[in-house]
Amino acid sequence: MSEQPVSVAIVGMGTVGTGAARVLVEQPERIARRAGRPVRLKHAVVRDVKKSRGIELPAGVLTTDFARVVRDPEVQIALLLVGGLHPGREMTLELLESGKDIVTANKALLCEFGGELFARARELGRTIAFEAAVAGGIPIINTVSQCLAANQITSIAAILNGTSNYILTQMIGENWPYRQALAQAQSLGYAEEDPTLDIDGTDAAQKLVILTQLAFGVKAQLTEFPRKGIDTLELSDLKYAGELGYTVKLLAVARLIAGQLEMHVQPTLVRHHTPLAEIRGPFNAIALVGDVVGETWYSGPGAGQMPTASSVVADLIDTIAGRTRLTFPRLEVWRDPPPYAVQPREKTSSRFYLRFNVLDQPHVLADIADILGRNHISIASVIQHEAAGSDNADRRTVPLVIMTHRTTVGNLESAERELSRLQSITPPHVRMPVAD
Amino acid sequence: MSEQPVSVAIVGMGTVGTGAARVLVEQPERIARRAGRPVRLKHAVVRDVKKSRGIELPAGVLTTDFARVVRDPEVQIALLLVGGLHPGREMTLELLESGKDIVTANKALLCEFGGELFARARELGRTIAFEAAVAGGIPIINTVSQCLAANQITSIAAILNGTSNYILTQMIGENWPYRQALAQAQSLGYAEEDPTLDIDGTDAAQKLVILTQLAFGVKAQLTEFPRKGIDTLELSDLKYAGELGYTVKLLAVARLIAGQLEMHVQPTLVRHHTPLAEIRGPFNAIALVGDVVGETWYSGPGAGQMPTASSVVADLIDTIAGRTRLTFPRLEVWRDPPPYAVQPREKTSSRFYLRFNVLDQPHVLADIADILGRNHISIASVIQHEAAGSDNADRRTVPLVIMTHRTTVGNLESAERELSRLQSITPPHVRMPVAD
Repeated sequence: MSEQPVSVAIVGMGTVGTGAARVLVEQPERIARRAGRPVRLKHAVVRDVKKSRGIELPAGVLTTDFARVVRDPEVQIALLLVGGLHPGREMTLELLESGKDIVTANKALLCEFGGELFARARELGRTIAFEAAVAGGIPIINTVSQCLAANQITSIAAILNGTSNYILTQMIGENWPYRQALAQAQSLGYAEEDPTLDIDGTDAAQKLVILTQLAFGVKAQLTEFPRKGIDTLELSDLKYAGELGYTVKLLAVARLIAGQLEMHVQPTLVRHHTPLAEIRGPFNAIALVGDVVGETWYSGPGAGQMPTASSVVADLIDTIAGRTRLTFPRLEVWRDPPPYAVQPREKTSSRFYLRFNVLDQPHVLADIADILGRNHISIASVIQHEAAGSDNADRRTVPLVIMTHRTTVGNLESAERELSRLQSITPPHVRMPVAD
Repeated sequence: MSEQPVSVAIVGMGTVGTGAARVLVEQPERIARRAGRPVRLKHAVVRDVKKSRGIELPAGVLTTDFARVVRDPEVQIALLLVGGLHPGREMTLELLESGKDIVTANKALLCEFGGELFARARELGRTIAFEAAVAGGIPIINTVSQCLAANQITSIAAILNGTSNYILTQMIGENWPYRQALAQAQSLGYAEEDPTLDIDGTDAAQKLVILTQLAFGVKAQLTEFPRKGIDTLELSDLKYAGELGYTVKLLAVARLIAGQLEMHVQPTLVRHHTPLAEIRGPFNAIALVGDVVGETWYSGPGAGQMPTASSVVADLIDTIAGRTRLTFPRLEVWRDPPPYAVQPREKTSSRFYLRFNVLDQPHVLADIADILGRNHISIASVIQHEAAGSDNADRRTVPLVIMTHRTTVGNLESAERELSRLQSITPPHVRMPVAD
């Protein structure tokens, strides 16, 4: 082992930055053995040096001055662990241009500016490692870009947002409405005070964009594919899905279908007792299909201080050991021209779960079945329970749940336009795809 | 990309060798792009060049002459895909000494001679890659030795033999006795004609030895830890376990307990709805706990032609790209002195499932409970169903199932010595641990 230490800076001492610092400070011997050289944490850039972080750093490490890192020629690697797009993008460019390799956990940054940042790093002969940006402690970036290198990945189906998965698990397990499960997630720290990006599907979609780049060489925009969160889900739909033998998961999907790339993030019915259905609580899971290996599954903590730090420090070790220098230039983060186009939304095909609120009167099911049939949608099963109560019997509505055979979103949208003109149906309509 | 091709030889064109050849022949562009150089399959060493393999190789590639590979200075990497210990060991040494890097799937070889072969490779500045030796298509070697480098692994609990898992799944699912499930596995090709090494736990134990080396730096011998297969399991025990809320799996376990390494391979009760319990059919799964990341899970096809070839070709790409040269010298396959001793068998502690055949007469349960109690074993639950039939009522035996609280193997063995003297108990006794 070379005794010459590598100097490292952490930019951003939030949850993940503090976790990474903790591993470096508490396990110097382990890290040195595996990296081949001792690691010296030289700077940790924070907004407020006085804030308590529950970790003891050597004097002079904490600083509010980002420029100190940029100017310090001894610092070879920067762990960029700030969130958000700005100044994350500008910091990354400055660090690259001053000759530093980057390790980051910032998925939003890579989703939005990955193309620019990766290109700039390559021009400068520098590297960006980002295992921690997707699925926290699960080594999925390494798996896709290195371990499965014999394969063309053909399908990714993944639970990439632990907050949403926790909320769904609680709704089903505890019979709680969405609001109550969200409040519980917030009180336990599984959901942020402003949980928008987690529960509206944005966080999962950003991670899917990164995985899709690596697996398919396609840089999809967030706006190019359907994205729906769990924030509008009703408990009753989870229960009907359960009756039909399915669990509802916020599923991120990217797969090759007839030479095009089907992509979406949305609540999806997953058959009971399949690996993805069994993931309960604040965890992530990824099912990958490769054309050589077949299907493999990966799961674990998708967020949290130490799981994410585990991936950050693994990237740091890879960067010091020289592996990232070999891997990064060959990541297939985009190919020109892109090998696959994103499939138009309306072409997406699957079975679907539909719920209508219908007036409890004759001929409603026949009208709906007729409209579906004329739009090439055939019905696989129906749930309609007897209406409870008897008040206002004329106008009372009952839920009608229909599971379709395989059809396209285009057919469904066409049918839904006709259905919306029926007096006997009142909003909302619910539509969720069924995972194959 | 350098246009200079890398010449490669395959030694052993059995199932896996043929699969690896297929990927190289059918996906030359993909492999070249990811390895950074074109790959030329120059020799494929077989016993019989005339045997049909369902794959078209260029003229002159097939040969029965292993020495051709050794003598050919153009060949930089050999895929050693023969089974068994000899001449696998001698071939590996010859290949290393003639300057070739090795990729292998031979777990028995690495379990037995890994220490010698790895040391020789390091002396010669060569590398040995062996992702395919454990868990087929699941990238567990890379995960343990690279992706989780920030961690000290503290626990491995794994289903490492797909044949056994298939048989157990069929016994429970179809209500079949062991013999019938084995016959089915053989007819489907999931079990070999001579299935001994799969079903007696040897195959899983060999893989556990390799994982234990990487994760704990300890070279355990096969004889140092308890090993038991599924070949003596009775369907009734799977059913009683089910009644208690557990599935029986052939579990390979290595974990740190109070500074010692607990290791065993044996049928083990795993609680329903946990990730390992849900692995059905001929698959493998590994639950890893790291001291930074927490618990992560990996699963997929643990054997088979193309899944295993996926790992072989990934290793080949890593070796060509130069990553193996960085990783291999630093694998912690042993540390001197070994950082942990293997825990003596009798110290192993868990809850246990016990089944006795007892005479259906008064005071038997009291006698057993008394002996267990005097040996510091307390009873958590009991199943004793009413005896069926009434023939020969004096001497009829009934099964008595006892779930204990946590105790040690030493306490149990001491109790079992006393119990074996009771006239009211007849063999066999069944004892299985319960996974935490």
